[in-house]
Amino acid sequence: MSEKKNQTIVIAEPGVQETYITREFDAPRALVYKAHIDPELYVQWLGPHGYEMILETFEPVSGGKYRYIHKDPQGNEFGFHGTFHEMSEELMIQTFEFEGLSEPGHVSLDTMQLEELPGGRTRVTIHSVFQSVADRDGMVQAGMEKGVREGYERLDDMLKEMS
Amino acid sequence: MSEKKNQTIVIAEPGVQETYITREFDAPRALVYKAHIDPELYVQWLGPHGYEMILETFEPVSGGKYRYIHKDPQGNEFGFHGTFHEMSEELMIQTFEFEGLSEPGHVSLDTMQLEELPGGRTRVTIHSVFQSVADRDGMVQAGMEKGVREGYERLDDMLKEMS
Repeated sequence: MSEKKNQTIVIAEPGVQETYITREFDAPRALVYKAHIDPELYVQWLGPHGYEMILETFEPVSGGKYRYIHKDPQGNEFGFHGTFHEMSEELMIQTFEFEGLSEPGHVSLDTMQLEELPGGRTRVTIHSVFQSVADRDGMVQAGMEKGVREGYERLDDMLKEMS
Repeated sequence: MSEKKNQTIVIAEPGVQETYITREFDAPRALVYKAHIDPELYVQWLGPHGYEMILETFEPVSGGKYRYIHKDPQGNEFGFHGTFHEMSEELMIQTFEFEGLSEPGHVSLDTMQLEELPGGRTRVTIHSVFQSVADRDGMVQAGMEKGVREGYERLDDMLKEMS
């Protein structure tokens, strides 16, 4: 029941430079938000199954910055960094750059809204805008959906343990 | 001659969530860049003619943040803030939010490229992506072109005095 209810929905319409992701959680908003700003919690769930996360820089406040490395089971490392334009329990806006591309400077702007739902549940909506349709398509093809879906499955498990 | 050569070109195609601005300067790139990161220079040229600029927060490095206020000749104040995702002489990427809208969270991602041209000249290209076409249209209608064009005219004058 819970798994069916809490599906990760990714919308990437052809020809536009944006994506929408929606996901619900069986946990109150304050807790979902805490999982995004507490460094000890954040590293436990962000990214695909089996990945280790090294949080090198983490300033989860408006105007702060971050950098982390995802290490896959084979030991390959993938770096990401950006800035937090806005950080509050209702609204998180950040820049996001994958460091593994052939040139730097391909950045998305991610707007995450956290809505309180009845029954102590929370809906997360992430709207990402990219510098081009090609950049958007590249991110989708690189497995964005899998990464987000698996990360949220791990977040489900973590939230369950915490409640 | 110089005025014809150094026109500010703003491209805002209908139906897309982005704009392109191109402008050339009769000054070397290092100097144009300095005008963007030296707080004493920055306040002298950014914004329309007759405006005063108060630089409240200014950390022009990758991962830094900024906030400034533009005061028009009538004393009206307009606040803006954001983060610097990337700051180098070749590439500046920042978030940008005008604080005067009816709700917070309407942010653009601005990518500025600085190219060295022959004869000690510089071409600046700004690519802005918005969270929606409506946000883009709103920014254009609010007088983005005038503000950028007049700011660059002031920058021309300042660069002339410096050389």
